[in-house]
Amino acid sequence: MKRVAYLQFSPRLGEAEANRKRLAELLAGRHADVIVLPELAVSGYALTPDLLARTAEPAEGPTAEMLTALARSTGAHYVCGIAERADGAHYNSAVLVGPRGLVSVYRKLHLFGFEFELFAPGAQAPRVVEAAGMRLGLMICFDWIFPETMRCLALAGAQLVCHPANLVLPHCPEAMITRCLENRVFAVTANRIGDESRDGTELYFIGSSQLVTPAGEVRGRADVDEETFHLAEINPDEADDKTLSSGNDLFAERRPELYGRLLD
Amino acid sequence: MKRVAYLQFSPRLGEAEANRKRLAELLAGRHADVIVLPELAVSGYALTPDLLARTAEPAEGPTAEMLTALARSTGAHYVCGIAERADGAHYNSAVLVGPRGLVSVYRKLHLFGFEFELFAPGAQAPRVVEAAGMRLGLMICFDWIFPETMRCLALAGAQLVCHPANLVLPHCPEAMITRCLENRVFAVTANRIGDESRDGTELYFIGSSQLVTPAGEVRGRADVDEETFHLAEINPDEADDKTLSSGNDLFAERRPELYGRLLD
Repeated sequence: MKRVAYLQFSPRLGEAEANRKRLAELLAGRHADVIVLPELAVSGYALTPDLLARTAEPAEGPTAEMLTALARSTGAHYVCGIAERADGAHYNSAVLVGPRGLVSVYRKLHLFGFEFELFAPGAQAPRVVEAAGMRLGLMICFDWIFPETMRCLALAGAQLVCHPANLVLPHCPEAMITRCLENRVFAVTANRIGDESRDGTELYFIGSSQLVTPAGEVRGRADVDEETFHLAEINPDEADDKTLSSGNDLFAERRPELYGRLLD
Repeated sequence: MKRVAYLQFSPRLGEAEANRKRLAELLAGRHADVIVLPELAVSGYALTPDLLARTAEPAEGPTAEMLTALARSTGAHYVCGIAERADGAHYNSAVLVGPRGLVSVYRKLHLFGFEFELFAPGAQAPRVVEAAGMRLGLMICFDWIFPETMRCLALAGAQLVCHPANLVLPHCPEAMITRCLENRVFAVTANRIGDESRDGTELYFIGSSQLVTPAGEVRGRADVDEETFHLAEINPDEADDKTLSSGNDLFAERRPELYGRLLD
């Protein structure tokens, strides 16, 4: 069995140092195998170009350092959304960090709304990373609405999809049930709470962080506006069995020879 | 605007002639552009090989003839599930029939449970048919759990997905909301009601037929056990706009160059 958790909280916009300090406090003494934090958990969401420049950091930067230090005392792996600076560009990224430091970085493939003004989209296919004795897949927020993202992760063998989010639209928590059912994987969505509305654009984050099982069971859905740390035990091997009670194997019975249009 | 409808009812197992007669009665005088009927609406579901042999028919068979005659008086197009006999095999099929007769036949790609003992799976990629002034996509029941089915239909330009079903598992009605949201199409699921449990296998059909809009709005979800004809007006052109209020275009922003694994 593995212990997986999410932390739902509200970062302060543009205050990277304060947010890292707060994360270190909130996570101190929290033991788990994997802990998922929200998207852009260090920078905040409603960034201006100026705030982005001030809060962005390399994948192996101060946030990874802080999480590595934490991991050495808790034994946990962390998935944390950061504004990443690399190769003269910015990415909406998630770092996977464990006791030995940075393990992997994922750059969001499908940007939402005004994020196109700030970030370059990732250029690497969804891939699976072994960590904490599991096969982990990373995706970020709006990636959920493209079924291809989680499908690619599941086909690559992901057992647990770690899903940092800054959700404002209402549909994702329910849709993640479909995603887990169709792919027979676990998923942890770590959403933020709070309000970063500005310039007439409403940005109320919907909380509702959750763990969903391969059978589509929701475990521990958080409130819409409450800071929450939630831990659950899962058996990741359940995600390796794609068979329903009807005997249907959802992966063996795919018909990829007829799906060519998906790559158009 | 187009008028689209479903008929939720309970066929009698193995009584094709009686079911056709009942369908003709239930549909007489019902005017609409497209009316979707359940999967295997003429043969019933829990078929034995013997019952299948007695209820199967060619696509251009007695059911298409009955629906053509109906269509000449109502002007409607019908999508109806039949047990199809063709080329020495049986298929779990849906026929699309209008005033000028059979328009198209779709053979279920993803069979459920014991259906593998009775039917050959379809061998043709999901495709779109123009009828009733709309671009229609056909899929059948368990096809819903494979996101590729409806994705292929939507990428081929479907505005309305016609989805005859004999659902027994509980998840599909909610999952169809995700399917419509991710593809920005309309979908009509016409499920059956009734009980064909046998040999210790429970087969209670869950009704809950519904229309879902591209915005994920459920219109007219039927009860779990009530015979229901439901008609709604839709503007199929709404399905041609893949843009969310955030400005995101869900089709233009796909990253097919990174989705290669989907065809593995």
